[in-house]
Amino acid sequence: MTITQLQKRYQALKNQGLNLDMTRGKPSPEQLDLSLPMLGLVGADNYTSEEGVDCRNYGGLDGLKAAKTLFSAFLEVEESEIIIGGNSSLTLMHDTMVNAMLHGFTDKGPWIQQKPKFICPAPGYDRHFNICHHLGIEAIRVENGPNGPNMDEVEALIANDPAIKGIWIVPKYGNPTGGICSDEVVNRLATMKIAANDFRIFWDNAYTVHHLNAEQPTIANILQACQAAGNPDRVFLFGSTSKITFAGAGVAMMGGSTNNMDWVRSHMKIQTIGSDKLNQLRHVRFFKSMDAIHQHMAKHAAILRPKFDMVLSVLEKEIGGTGMADWNNPQGGYFISLNTRPNRAKKVVQLAAEAGVKLTGAGAAFPYKNDPEDRNIRIAPSLPAIGDLEKATEILAVCIQLADMEG
Amino acid sequence: MTITQLQKRYQALKNQGLNLDMTRGKPSPEQLDLSLPMLGLVGADNYTSEEGVDCRNYGGLDGLKAAKTLFSAFLEVEESEIIIGGNSSLTLMHDTMVNAMLHGFTDKGPWIQQKPKFICPAPGYDRHFNICHHLGIEAIRVENGPNGPNMDEVEALIANDPAIKGIWIVPKYGNPTGGICSDEVVNRLATMKIAANDFRIFWDNAYTVHHLNAEQPTIANILQACQAAGNPDRVFLFGSTSKITFAGAGVAMMGGSTNNMDWVRSHMKIQTIGSDKLNQLRHVRFFKSMDAIHQHMAKHAAILRPKFDMVLSVLEKEIGGTGMADWNNPQGGYFISLNTRPNRAKKVVQLAAEAGVKLTGAGAAFPYKNDPEDRNIRIAPSLPAIGDLEKATEILAVCIQLADMEG
Repeated sequence: MTITQLQKRYQALKNQGLNLDMTRGKPSPEQLDLSLPMLGLVGADNYTSEEGVDCRNYGGLDGLKAAKTLFSAFLEVEESEIIIGGNSSLTLMHDTMVNAMLHGFTDKGPWIQQKPKFICPAPGYDRHFNICHHLGIEAIRVENGPNGPNMDEVEALIANDPAIKGIWIVPKYGNPTGGICSDEVVNRLATMKIAANDFRIFWDNAYTVHHLNAEQPTIANILQACQAAGNPDRVFLFGSTSKITFAGAGVAMMGGSTNNMDWVRSHMKIQTIGSDKLNQLRHVRFFKSMDAIHQHMAKHAAILRPKFDMVLSVLEKEIGGTGMADWNNPQGGYFISLNTRPNRAKKVVQLAAEAGVKLTGAGAAFPYKNDPEDRNIRIAPSLPAIGDLEKATEILAVCIQLADMEG
Repeated sequence: MTITQLQKRYQALKNQGLNLDMTRGKPSPEQLDLSLPMLGLVGADNYTSEEGVDCRNYGGLDGLKAAKTLFSAFLEVEESEIIIGGNSSLTLMHDTMVNAMLHGFTDKGPWIQQKPKFICPAPGYDRHFNICHHLGIEAIRVENGPNGPNMDEVEALIANDPAIKGIWIVPKYGNPTGGICSDEVVNRLATMKIAANDFRIFWDNAYTVHHLNAEQPTIANILQACQAAGNPDRVFLFGSTSKITFAGAGVAMMGGSTNNMDWVRSHMKIQTIGSDKLNQLRHVRFFKSMDAIHQHMAKHAAILRPKFDMVLSVLEKEIGGTGMADWNNPQGGYFISLNTRPNRAKKVVQLAAEAGVKLTGAGAAFPYKNDPEDRNIRIAPSLPAIGDLEKATEILAVCIQLADMEG
């Protein structure tokens, strides 16, 4: 196809007046429908938890017992190693970082007094990096790949610089890479020698049960690995039901050593009397067990898999084998990560926006929004209807071709 | 009664083996029952807000439009001057203080770099003071009375010390004093000359509609007073439905100038994608208007007033006119504030605990838990059943007599 033909095709697609938002990994209404029965499980005559707590009243700083039981299995920690939060694991991560800044962990004192730095494997989750930027924590990029972060880079960084206080990890179905931390990566994270004695891994297991295929990889248990290595306080684990039940009204949780959980509670008790226990009760009644969560997630997969397949098939049909871009076929999670040839991603995102398809800003998956090669584009297939997704991906593919030919 | 007789009576009461917790201002189950119909108002077929938002999904950083409409009337601010939070106004206050510490408001920079101090009118709310203590903000006590803080003290403090960054105020039915800020106090707070240009009033209007009597005092509008005085950014207002609907599953909110609300959003967007909109929806459907909130609060008053009257009548019968203690008859709120003769409050609280009545720790209503005269005891009549309350107050009164006679 000549560039003139391509430009005509782009113009024709633009003229369709599409208006699609693919900027964020939002569940579709059909996915949210799966959890509707939950809304009926707490009503005027059953607001008391199984252990006898009136869930309407104050109290329960770190969560209902039943919620701890269910979600400790989910996070793969002990019941003594979990705290139940509100509706957002982002809030738990943010607040943990804030508390580290203001109070610190050890005799080394508050991070804020130590010009802290944080390792940000990228491409990664923009909201993680934004927490660092906002708090004035220097973000240091390391490469993020299909097996997790490049551990050679990580180990070289942390061995001698006590100002490096931690690392962000999305261990399974990474956002946006789809990467899955290998046993070797987990083991190296748990055992590596670190200059800072108050270093913390922020382990955001956002997609732990969010499989797209029947085959469901497991990953090594980071907390157990840290404990076995004599570094029990090295990791904070985070999770939520935001992409399991309701994205805006789920239950968030965090895990770690009892020492770390005591530290969290010592700050949390100043900030709140406790999170919404009625919503915790809805969740524990809806699921009861991990088996039920897995069955529920299979229904999500049945809705999501065809959407991912649609994006992949259109990309393959339009630009497969051209070398203009490569992309992954994730086994789970919410994103496809696409790389153009260098210096084209911003152009593609802009062309797509002009044709009515809003994508996450180019570079968003990198610290300081700076993709050094300007190649990475995050595709979020979950929200649009499948027909819209077909059109949107066609537009994206045409924009990639156009940007590539215009150079 | 001789001291021996009193000791016998105390021993007899102790032998009843009562076990009552009056430490906190928790609503009783009967009060929580008033809001049970709310639980049925959001279900499988009505999760969409009136403006068309799917409340199950992500989004809505600062709240649903309908929630802003209802609760801006509640806080007495404009719809552009409110942000809806999660289930806890304490969290909004804590997080605002943290953001002031880390980021500050003006070219003066973060509070944390300025050895900040905060004015704490006392007796006051222990959780307010705990935020200061926890963040390393020096708490400076001023006297708190029936018309609010002693403004002569406040004005003398803030006129010349730029490190004094703010003041806690519970403007109506103060915790525990029952005090109501007079128009003069509001006016002086709004107009006073302050050395710090980043001074903020934390106006915790926790009991604004929590009347105990038919007569319902109104207080001057602090935000409008600040705006009229050319100090629009001087005040943050806070409120919640914790003691209106469900103490653990209500809706919290904060208000202030649009400039201040923009500041809050600029930090909040890093911390969360938005609070639970389904719970906001429950609330706006349950109340619809301020009139409905007032009618609802009359039902709370009908449950609470007899409990307050029981405490007051037992105190009067047992120790009225003895000079051993004085106490207030609050027009609203959740507490009775009692003062023993000097150096007796700790003893009384300890004696009561040994007889099975747990009261808030003596001194809790003062910064650093230090009641300089050891006189103040906070009585929280809301939770116990009225019969238990009668026994508990009898025990308290006997303990006061015993402590007084033992000296």
